[in-house]
Amino acid sequence: MAMSSSKTIRRLEVVSPVPADIDIANSVEPLPISDIAQALNLGPKHYDLYGKYKAKVLLSVLDELEGAEDGYYVVVGGITPTPLGEGKSTTTVGLCQALGAFLDKKVFTCLRQPSQGPTFGIKGGAAGGGYSQVIPMDEFNLHLTGDIHAITAANNLLAAAIDTRIFHEASQSDKALFNRLCPPNKEGKRTFADIMHRRLKKLGIAKTNPDELTPEEIKRFARLDIDPESITWRRVMDVNDRFLRKITVGQGPEEKGMVRETGFDISVASEIMAVLALTTSLADMRERLGRMVIGNSKAGEPITADDLGLGGALTVLMKDAINPTLMQTLEGTPVLVHAGPFANIAHGNSSIVADKIALKLVGKSGFVVTEAGFGADIGTEKFMNIKCRYSGLVPQCAVIVATIRALKMHGGGPEVAAGKPLDHAYLAENVTLVEAGCVNLARHIANTKAYGVNVVVAINKFASDTEAEMSVVRTAALAAGAFDAVVCTHHAHGGKGAVDLGIAVQRACESVTQLLRFLYPLEFSIKEKIEAIAKSYGASGVEYSEQAEKQIEMYSRQGFSGLPICMAKTQYSFSHIPSQKGAPTGFVLPIRDVRASIGAGFIYPLVGTMSTMPGLPTRPCFFDIDIDIATGKVLGLS
Amino acid sequence: MAMSSSKTIRRLEVVSPVPADIDIANSVEPLPISDIAQALNLGPKHYDLYGKYKAKVLLSVLDELEGAEDGYYVVVGGITPTPLGEGKSTTTVGLCQALGAFLDKKVFTCLRQPSQGPTFGIKGGAAGGGYSQVIPMDEFNLHLTGDIHAITAANNLLAAAIDTRIFHEASQSDKALFNRLCPPNKEGKRTFADIMHRRLKKLGIAKTNPDELTPEEIKRFARLDIDPESITWRRVMDVNDRFLRKITVGQGPEEKGMVRETGFDISVASEIMAVLALTTSLADMRERLGRMVIGNSKAGEPITADDLGLGGALTVLMKDAINPTLMQTLEGTPVLVHAGPFANIAHGNSSIVADKIALKLVGKSGFVVTEAGFGADIGTEKFMNIKCRYSGLVPQCAVIVATIRALKMHGGGPEVAAGKPLDHAYLAENVTLVEAGCVNLARHIANTKAYGVNVVVAINKFASDTEAEMSVVRTAALAAGAFDAVVCTHHAHGGKGAVDLGIAVQRACESVTQLLRFLYPLEFSIKEKIEAIAKSYGASGVEYSEQAEKQIEMYSRQGFSGLPICMAKTQYSFSHIPSQKGAPTGFVLPIRDVRASIGAGFIYPLVGTMSTMPGLPTRPCFFDIDIDIATGKVLGLS
Repeated sequence: MAMSSSKTIRRLEVVSPVPADIDIANSVEPLPISDIAQALNLGPKHYDLYGKYKAKVLLSVLDELEGAEDGYYVVVGGITPTPLGEGKSTTTVGLCQALGAFLDKKVFTCLRQPSQGPTFGIKGGAAGGGYSQVIPMDEFNLHLTGDIHAITAANNLLAAAIDTRIFHEASQSDKALFNRLCPPNKEGKRTFADIMHRRLKKLGIAKTNPDELTPEEIKRFARLDIDPESITWRRVMDVNDRFLRKITVGQGPEEKGMVRETGFDISVASEIMAVLALTTSLADMRERLGRMVIGNSKAGEPITADDLGLGGALTVLMKDAINPTLMQTLEGTPVLVHAGPFANIAHGNSSIVADKIALKLVGKSGFVVTEAGFGADIGTEKFMNIKCRYSGLVPQCAVIVATIRALKMHGGGPEVAAGKPLDHAYLAENVTLVEAGCVNLARHIANTKAYGVNVVVAINKFASDTEAEMSVVRTAALAAGAFDAVVCTHHAHGGKGAVDLGIAVQRACESVTQLLRFLYPLEFSIKEKIEAIAKSYGASGVEYSEQAEKQIEMYSRQGFSGLPICMAKTQYSFSHIPSQKGAPTGFVLPIRDVRASIGAGFIYPLVGTMSTMPGLPTRPCFFDIDIDIATGKVLGLS
Repeated sequence: MAMSSSKTIRRLEVVSPVPADIDIANSVEPLPISDIAQALNLGPKHYDLYGKYKAKVLLSVLDELEGAEDGYYVVVGGITPTPLGEGKSTTTVGLCQALGAFLDKKVFTCLRQPSQGPTFGIKGGAAGGGYSQVIPMDEFNLHLTGDIHAITAANNLLAAAIDTRIFHEASQSDKALFNRLCPPNKEGKRTFADIMHRRLKKLGIAKTNPDELTPEEIKRFARLDIDPESITWRRVMDVNDRFLRKITVGQGPEEKGMVRETGFDISVASEIMAVLALTTSLADMRERLGRMVIGNSKAGEPITADDLGLGGALTVLMKDAINPTLMQTLEGTPVLVHAGPFANIAHGNSSIVADKIALKLVGKSGFVVTEAGFGADIGTEKFMNIKCRYSGLVPQCAVIVATIRALKMHGGGPEVAAGKPLDHAYLAENVTLVEAGCVNLARHIANTKAYGVNVVVAINKFASDTEAEMSVVRTAALAAGAFDAVVCTHHAHGGKGAVDLGIAVQRACESVTQLLRFLYPLEFSIKEKIEAIAKSYGASGVEYSEQAEKQIEMYSRQGFSGLPICMAKTQYSFSHIPSQKGAPTGFVLPIRDVRASIGAGFIYPLVGTMSTMPGLPTRPCFFDIDIDIATGKVLGLS
């Protein structure tokens, strides 16, 4: 399966000024995705088509390629961003277009699937931008191949099962409950469903015949005795619906007063999304989904999806979602889109299985470029300490995307806000502000370099940026230990604008000398791990709320202290305070609460208050989104 | 595009006793769906593949076939069912297997997509059963091609937009609101989004430049002034989650006390599902989605999705869902699966576009068999008066599925309940009970015949049914005016078991002499229409609650009285009382409330209390559903 992607390369004719994203995307006729697959030596048995321009690559490809060598593994992170974003996805795509279409390398882009919430809310789509995009961009942004919908369905089936189980347990005797759970078959014989053997094993009941259980064993088996106060499992929806953040359920007369306060998160915040991103095989996903903890019994024991009888059904709902989706860039290089956890509230990286497949498909001396969400303090840190820890994969190069705009903000420039005009400081040369802001870049470089990778800074050039401004960034980057720092113009020029970046990344990969070094060993206590990460932020210490202390104690007692840590922290500062730009030091990082995604496999401390359900603005993007009835084309998607 | 489906026919080797549905389904290797398409003379430009065994047939096929003749149009309804179901889907599939695989006819089966709620709850899947099934049955029952997920996403985006709009209106002046809705572009010029012209037109404001609106016009345009008490739009989820039936939203601190009582329905109860089922083209769907009414302004004017700026975005979310999904039966005949409204709370029929495509593809003297949910009193009635009214299609034959079991129940047999052992009366011969129960069948025959179609009764034979029992059914059916009444054994034998039924249906179609006669003209008032339907149930009159009177008055005032009526009524009796079996008369039908699906295009009176969100039992189906890790096959689906 050697790759010959050059067959699918297409040259762009770029126009200036750069047209709207959807107009660029619609101006290019995508290749049938089967052509992209064929260039990767993938035949029809290796993938399932979803329309003409998307295909799910089957996991069995990994088995077939087991002995093959991996390509180079490049992660793209960023400096601490402005609310406008600094073009990290766009740079990821542009870099790959450069490597594939101009430097004749085998290359694969690995991206997250975007949530539909922001697509119809404030942000718009996430397929890159300008002449560096994944196409068809409407299919990328809408439904894709249904993975997020599958997550929503699975998450909410589990949620429904929790409340209903509490309800049924409340009105039934142990015996009635047990008789319903293990009803007699036609021959009058009771049997356990296969999944029930997992709970029996957990309880230490070594019996296979329901009729042999003692009344005490029947009680322990049939009564989960979930403590409603302890339930951490929330419902999800892939819509920005702020009115679901906090709700009361169970107010119907048939629910007999069993009301409970809970809420919805956006679907990408579901633990099942994190499981999808971190799983390594169908068998592994089955186990992870089954061991997700939804809360505790009143005795303080963790209750899992398997205890509720759902690990198998959830896997069935997710069986197609585990296969990543093949798409293409504007210049015809291949892309795998898979999983989409947010980086501020989850681990913010696309899937392990997509990266693994891509690494095998590009093979030795090929390149896989994968994006880590938001600033490197959260995205790249979690890429290294969580994703690579579970995958066993070793990156050679980390790209850090920087913009003059964001550096000026870090140097003391006025506030940058979405939907408001940019201050003059950002539109005219101001070398002093840029220079001062490079402290932010420098800390991201130092932190990232410590993992043992070579760091390449990509200066994502905007029209108003000047030579003098870019020059100080390059100097500061090299001084901070970057392997290289290059200016790129892929938004305006496609891959051609990122050729220098591509060359730098290639050199960085070829000359790496170290292996991945984690920031902390798993053997550290939960607090030691939190403190190692806090230190990398510049914090002088960590402060735990009473609730956080209680949770850490509980998770340690339950045997979960060996998991890696996934900080839920603002992306707008190294610290917990979004307004602290640059490279703050001396602050004490407050841990408000600590939660756990046991199935996904991490503990997540909440640093301050992070919203897990965005809202819609007064004039959401959806006002502009429509369909051309005559052609069926989507209009107004940005 | 003549069809040569015989190429795809496959012979079944049937085993006795009949194995589990999933085992039969897994024992047959489905043909690649592209083979099925090819036999229909559909090429790759006519469909999009979704994996190997499903394809979405594009609506453009209808344009291509515009001049072609339609085939015969057969609707399958049933007698009033027991809670166990009488095999209506199974008969629909079996009849088509007979026509296609044994009688050498061109044939198409049109079915609804099942909701995933019941699949994981009590009922299990809905792909037919035994040797009359749609395959792969796991793909049929799970996700399919994502249509219900698209409906969920669209429904809930609209719901989020409603609450958020009220929230933003509450805190902003008219001017601030208007300025946000029509922000200045880079050149400082304000413009209306295209969709806003719809609202301007509705308000009678003939201006295209936002700067020219008067303060009064600004207020009328920007302030929807939705009355929270009037909101009929609920959120949906395709999960049996009874705790969401009644909830309070908006309890988060950021929502500033703007709490509201509302609830979730199951997704298939969404008006968007009804729109999908009743639409005839992309342009028509755009208009229907835009005119869906979510509630009233405080002044009592209906507020639509287009007023909220969402008609276009909802269409974009539904643009792939409008294409029906091609699958196959166990014997290789083609199936279109599309839309899935429940028949007790919505109109209970699969889509118009699927039937239209199928009728063109089978062509003259071919057969399209489509199913109408639950008993003929609700399913077939709505098929005729709502679906055929909007489609303009004319059926020739209606099949009524009857079982000895259900007829015994109608004749006075003991209660039949899901999950409980059947009484002895149902397992041994009892001609008297059967004979008495035929009053139910007779009324369904008379009602259905009145539409001008020939009625064929299909006696779906179970192993314990006797010749004497079946003989009285046949006699009663013919006496009641049925064209024919035949025994079928398709569950046990596949198409071979429904050959007699196939022959009867063919004769019925060929000898029809009348055109479709509706039960009521649209010009009737809402009450006159309700009363015409109530009379067909056997009611002596109709009683309206105060709330129902108020709503009828309101909808009439708002100009919606010309819509057809979709009764929300129990499927377990002709009347509103599920325990009234047989053919009750003399009852007064109570109308508790009246609602409207203006976009879908019907008024729906609520007869008694119908649950729009099922619950999970103590031991849901999901306990048995798992995946074989080695093969990836789904286990335990029933």
